[in-house]
Amino acid sequence: MSTDGGLHVGILVFDEADELDVVGPFEVFTSWAEHSEIKPRVSTFSRTGDGVRLAGGLRMLPHRSADDVGPLHLLVHPGGWGTRTLLDDATHREWLRAVRLQTPVVASVCTGALVLAAAGLLAGRPATTHHDHYDELARIDPSILVDTEARFVDDGDVVTSAGVSAGIDMALHLVARLESDTAAAAVCRALQYDPPRTV
Amino acid sequence: MSTDGGLHVGILVFDEADELDVVGPFEVFTSWAEHSEIKPRVSTFSRTGDGVRLAGGLRMLPHRSADDVGPLHLLVHPGGWGTRTLLDDATHREWLRAVRLQTPVVASVCTGALVLAAAGLLAGRPATTHHDHYDELARIDPSILVDTEARFVDDGDVVTSAGVSAGIDMALHLVARLESDTAAAAVCRALQYDPPRTV
Repeated sequence: MSTDGGLHVGILVFDEADELDVVGPFEVFTSWAEHSEIKPRVSTFSRTGDGVRLAGGLRMLPHRSADDVGPLHLLVHPGGWGTRTLLDDATHREWLRAVRLQTPVVASVCTGALVLAAAGLLAGRPATTHHDHYDELARIDPSILVDTEARFVDDGDVVTSAGVSAGIDMALHLVARLESDTAAAAVCRALQYDPPRTV
Repeated sequence: MSTDGGLHVGILVFDEADELDVVGPFEVFTSWAEHSEIKPRVSTFSRTGDGVRLAGGLRMLPHRSADDVGPLHLLVHPGGWGTRTLLDDATHREWLRAVRLQTPVVASVCTGALVLAAAGLLAGRPATTHHDHYDELARIDPSILVDTEARFVDDGDVVTSAGVSAGIDMALHLVARLESDTAAAAVCRALQYDPPRTV
């Protein structure tokens, strides 16, 4: 984790979050930190700061807790089976609404969009999620304009991606948007991410 | 981690291994375990079983140590900056040669191929690595036929992938090879991995 600079990316982790939902964007943003003029910081954090067991069984220790992660420019909310628990968690929804007010960009990967929707963050907006969960997204909030084509939907302060691997494409897009196409291209090269040139 | 079945995939982790080198294949293989008729097991392991700090700062706790991971059908050796240490580590090279003798398929991601080469596992074979390290691979063992085009090179019992994200494509290929195209397609669908259809 870099400790330089002002732009701060925070990736939320929780039990049963999907591994690639977390690590795809983490890899893009930490590579960005290496290739960037603006030197973003990248932190992972769990609610309490304790370790989490991700959906496929990988155990990870986050950098921080939600209380000490500090102000973020960009919050990434992964998906995975753990979203089932978060959807019913009023404290988590309330926390999301509070963070939303002070965070310029909130982004979800995969079924993370369902949690954003449950917290009311997607009301009246275009958004996407994992392709097996379009109907569920519309059920949670019928005012959402569900995009069933896009790899990711950038609605300015709220950005949502399609399933799992699409979080990589969304993260590359955010690097291009927050810094430059040149920075995103440098990340693509470092990750040898040739096939889907989405930026 | 599934504990059923006979086919056992082991992913080595070490300090400064690249996050996506580890988690890309891990995600593919754990999703495979969910969609498979043959129910592979997927384990991560470090030399001692202790936690590791990956290249971008993510801290993870592996399932097992090298001594207790047990027989593997497929070993995945990631790359990342930590390979610099492993290249000079005679104990690691010796361990790799021993594991090689009892493991049907040894696969590397990214600069993991440099370590396989240093251990003599790629002598006289076609292989690839991260595109910034083709020359280094050829220097370590001039008998290697370095493939500068492929996303991955399947030479039967030894399989090598190009940089970072190419580990996902190699893992999907291995699912198709070890089970079926149908199983690999189910994983692609679960991960919503549309763009690069390499299987």
